[in-house]
Amino acid sequence: MKTNTSSTAPIGVFDSGVGGLTVAREIMRQLPQENIVYFGDTARVPYGSKSRDNIIRFSRQIIRFLETKEVKAIVIACNTASALALETVKEETDIPVIGVIVPGARSAVQATKNGIIGVAGTEATIRSETYTKVIKEMKPDAVVIGKPCPLFVPLVEEGFAKHRITEEVIEIYLSDMRQTRIDTMILGCTHYPLLRSKIMTFFGDKVHIVNPAYETAMDVKKILRESGKENTSGKAASYEFYVSDAAEKFTHFANTILSYDVAATKLVNIEEY
Amino acid sequence: MKTNTSSTAPIGVFDSGVGGLTVAREIMRQLPQENIVYFGDTARVPYGSKSRDNIIRFSRQIIRFLETKEVKAIVIACNTASALALETVKEETDIPVIGVIVPGARSAVQATKNGIIGVAGTEATIRSETYTKVIKEMKPDAVVIGKPCPLFVPLVEEGFAKHRITEEVIEIYLSDMRQTRIDTMILGCTHYPLLRSKIMTFFGDKVHIVNPAYETAMDVKKILRESGKENTSGKAASYEFYVSDAAEKFTHFANTILSYDVAATKLVNIEEY
Repeated sequence: MKTNTSSTAPIGVFDSGVGGLTVAREIMRQLPQENIVYFGDTARVPYGSKSRDNIIRFSRQIIRFLETKEVKAIVIACNTASALALETVKEETDIPVIGVIVPGARSAVQATKNGIIGVAGTEATIRSETYTKVIKEMKPDAVVIGKPCPLFVPLVEEGFAKHRITEEVIEIYLSDMRQTRIDTMILGCTHYPLLRSKIMTFFGDKVHIVNPAYETAMDVKKILRESGKENTSGKAASYEFYVSDAAEKFTHFANTILSYDVAATKLVNIEEY
Repeated sequence: MKTNTSSTAPIGVFDSGVGGLTVAREIMRQLPQENIVYFGDTARVPYGSKSRDNIIRFSRQIIRFLETKEVKAIVIACNTASALALETVKEETDIPVIGVIVPGARSAVQATKNGIIGVAGTEATIRSETYTKVIKEMKPDAVVIGKPCPLFVPLVEEGFAKHRITEEVIEIYLSDMRQTRIDTMILGCTHYPLLRSKIMTFFGDKVHIVNPAYETAMDVKKILRESGKENTSGKAASYEFYVSDAAEKFTHFANTILSYDVAATKLVNIEEY
């Protein structure tokens, strides 16, 4: 557990699979000078239906892997891992670890007018009530309405993001929430921004949709600035991608999400870490 | 790798998760005197989108675990693991290992009149073309039409088996196949029998639907009989359930599938095997 003090060191970003690329994309956009090492745990995806103990174990292994890449900060791009593992794992390393829940909650608290906030997420994220807890710490009188949407991840992963069937599933999961008075809704899973336009259409103008990725990238920027670790080398940023399985499929998916052209993804046996 | 010669030893059955319970159910029905140790790899489910290397590694770990339970035979209830790992792992143990592909293929070959057989399965199962290869060994002039249906597993796991949305997904995946002249169709994933009635309604009377579980249980019976290992103790059979994650959720699901009442499921750290 060594801290790398070099400002040119990469930022480590991890997720259960491809979803975290929506967060990596935002970091690339807002911090174009920063190098990134991305890890997607495609051998064990999805996390959203798994237990806290396993999510913590998986996160520890990935952090140990990212430590071998001498990262200067770690972003847990996965909402489920942020909700269930962040508190535990950040105590175990000297490297700053940033999750997506606090930035997402802050963004929602800033946006809401009536204090009624919806959260769509995986079963594990919603059941943990981490968003509720964090939002209420920021705004004690807020009302938080959570809804697990477990089919959203497979719909995105299997290429149904633009399909009519996805509109029906959105309706099944979120109709109850539309009946409430929420004026802000957090996309509490990194896959969900890929359904953003359909979810926006479903809710209409009255609901502000929050993608925590934007605020997360802002937090990363702030932390690097405050610790004097912004990369000011002036060199073009380099991006590396690692997965625990099916590297080719990941590369293909990454190229549909990122503007950066992913040439190759490397395979890692994450259980060895 | 020891062979257990006791006829009262249990049969080991494993799957990526809950789907293999449809096979365990059939073994319980046809071999009511046999003890069963079931393992569901719920920490790493689903297998269908993962690589051959990882499926083999997962299967090896599970077989090592089942060996500690001194099983007398191992049933790979998962089509994906049967398609990708069976050939490799059966050479590595003295315990007889039975997959679901050969029994399923045999059943289809017996049922077909025109020799045109459909197979619905996971991406990995269909891409492996194992069903095609096995069917053609039995009936060289057969025509096999495979179709990956990756959303079927999450639909079942998330409780949508009886939902109208599932009918639409069946239509999306299988409409092309209905346009062909198949007269027999294999449910080439252990989750799919839970969608059987909807798939039968979709195809109508003209297509015979094969659930490999039935023929697999017959094969297990035959192997035990031939090796003199049928349990004739006359004692009531005992069933044990192990998973790599989320034991409670598994128990709940198991109780909706099995007529036997599952009291408790034990957690195993499968990566230690």
